[in-house]
Amino acid sequence: MEWMMSSALESPHAFRRGDPDATPDGQAVLLAGIDGGGTKTTALVADERLTVLGEGRSGPSNFLRVGVEAAVTAILEALEGACRQAECTPADLRALGIGLAGIAHPTHYRRMREALLRALVEHLAYGARDPQSLQNFVLTTDAEIALYGATDGQPGVVIVSGTGSIAYGMNARGQKARSGGWGPTFGDEGSGYDIARRALAAVASAYDGRMPPTLLTERVCRYFGIESPAELPRVIYEDATSLNIAPLSEVVIQAAREGDAVAREILREAGLELARTAIAVIKRLRLQQEAFRVSYVGGVFSAGELILEPIRQKIREVAPKAELNPPLFPPAVGALKLALARLGLSDRESEAARSLPKLGVR
Amino acid sequence: MEWMMSSALESPHAFRRGDPDATPDGQAVLLAGIDGGGTKTTALVADERLTVLGEGRSGPSNFLRVGVEAAVTAILEALEGACRQAECTPADLRALGIGLAGIAHPTHYRRMREALLRALVEHLAYGARDPQSLQNFVLTTDAEIALYGATDGQPGVVIVSGTGSIAYGMNARGQKARSGGWGPTFGDEGSGYDIARRALAAVASAYDGRMPPTLLTERVCRYFGIESPAELPRVIYEDATSLNIAPLSEVVIQAAREGDAVAREILREAGLELARTAIAVIKRLRLQQEAFRVSYVGGVFSAGELILEPIRQKIREVAPKAELNPPLFPPAVGALKLALARLGLSDRESEAARSLPKLGVR
Repeated sequence: MEWMMSSALESPHAFRRGDPDATPDGQAVLLAGIDGGGTKTTALVADERLTVLGEGRSGPSNFLRVGVEAAVTAILEALEGACRQAECTPADLRALGIGLAGIAHPTHYRRMREALLRALVEHLAYGARDPQSLQNFVLTTDAEIALYGATDGQPGVVIVSGTGSIAYGMNARGQKARSGGWGPTFGDEGSGYDIARRALAAVASAYDGRMPPTLLTERVCRYFGIESPAELPRVIYEDATSLNIAPLSEVVIQAAREGDAVAREILREAGLELARTAIAVIKRLRLQQEAFRVSYVGGVFSAGELILEPIRQKIREVAPKAELNPPLFPPAVGALKLALARLGLSDRESEAARSLPKLGVR
Repeated sequence: MEWMMSSALESPHAFRRGDPDATPDGQAVLLAGIDGGGTKTTALVADERLTVLGEGRSGPSNFLRVGVEAAVTAILEALEGACRQAECTPADLRALGIGLAGIAHPTHYRRMREALLRALVEHLAYGARDPQSLQNFVLTTDAEIALYGATDGQPGVVIVSGTGSIAYGMNARGQKARSGGWGPTFGDEGSGYDIARRALAAVASAYDGRMPPTLLTERVCRYFGIESPAELPRVIYEDATSLNIAPLSEVVIQAAREGDAVAREILREAGLELARTAIAVIKRLRLQQEAFRVSYVGGVFSAGELILEPIRQKIREVAPKAELNPPLFPPAVGALKLALARLGLSDRESEAARSLPKLGVR
């Protein structure tokens, strides 16, 4: 799923020219939201009406996969890019909302928070203009901002499936639950990595005569530039990280679109795994009888109905009033909204909530 | 499965005191067999009647997992240990049979052969006493020596399941086939690593509420010294190699013995995967109507009937005259036999074949 940010940026600097929303000191309130995942990092800079003024992108920032240093660097790079486009500096920001993959564990959270805040202050002078902004630094999981964006803060469930996968939800009492997200070795069922791994296994099995032939054999070999599946161990084990393998899921989606039965079955199984993960959250939150939104975020959902249909069917069995729908806003906007809430402001009481769809960032 | 080597070593040096099998030049013919796997390396030194005179062990020598240098070092270490016990030096050896994991691909084979032969000559002076022994250097896959040992060179199939897994077989026409052995990322179904990964996934799923509770939760936490499954990503992703995770399969086997349904199901599924792999080999070799031995080698089979029963059932459906039995000889003896064959000698024409069971190495 690709959100078109650029359309929101047609006149990004209006606020500088006597914007009525500017604070009493004459400065517009600027805030940033960052979505840091296993594949890429997205940063947005916006004003308090959540008009997006700048966007920046960089590489992966899941520190479990790339290390703390590379993760922090990616976050700083995305934020600098967004500030540059918004014609401001990180020191101008009043609040910062960040959702990161890989920080669910308290130890990881503390480690990342410390490294990140130190780097923001030292390298980007975050908080230099307004020390209060150091208090308005909100760090949470990528699942939390995905949910916040997907349901616009309302009760519901979001299924995230990119390089990794997780389901996360909230009920009307504000109780939250997650399921999945255990990483490539023993979790992330239905993720891009899982789909890619199943595709490689299907190619290997077809080669051995354990499974039927599949279009995937030719496609996977072409992807890696090899002649035969016999070469797969060589190319895979030279650099067998989930990051390097997950993009192969796009090959699976393409083969499934062309009708390959094995590829279709892989996507169907991935959908069922994602549904299982979402259902665990639904049951934990006792949402079975409620009407609520189940949304989805991440590259895997470019498969469309090939993966949505099994999810929809399976969830319907457990929660018949649930509706599977695209997210209202992308995770980075979820992060912006968290930053706005930390400022004590809410887009819900303003015009901004209604103006958001105009951003194109749906 | 553990072969008791020590019993064979009671009077290892008899041959030095005017052994009737000594060659015309008065020197006994010494040869070595090496079994190099993902977890450990075993070397045996024997005379031409395959009386085992020395045994040496070391760490893993699958170069795809530990690198060429570490693999070569492990092989040299095991061989030196075996020679020390046999009171000879590697320079005394007339032939060397080696089976290694990770060298199925020709590129890998060439790379490992070159590095290994160079190190043997430079560091252990292999070939220094008898240059012909450089010609009697037989390098092949771990699956090949496992099969050769398991069936004593007769038609049949061997299922290897340790850290990794593979099935390998030969028919009466000498045709060979393999299935599986694609490594931890997209193969090795039914291996120790696969069993361990499934156990971790079961613990994570139980924690999420996706799967029923299991005894594995407490056992896995105890194994890693953690309080809760929430800590698993931290301990696993610090060092998530198949080598570090595979030993957890022993915890699964233990829990299954104590009756845990989830652990039993994991072993049953692993058995079915191994059977599928063996069946692919059986079909390729057109053995369905033949009577032949299917043997098994590797740490996973310490699970006994918990894993053998599903294998037996599944294979019987396809090849009703196949018999699932323990291997006749361990892989390192298979390697010795290959070395013996290279010398133009065969234990089949001598007394040695009958004396072998006395070694205890069955």
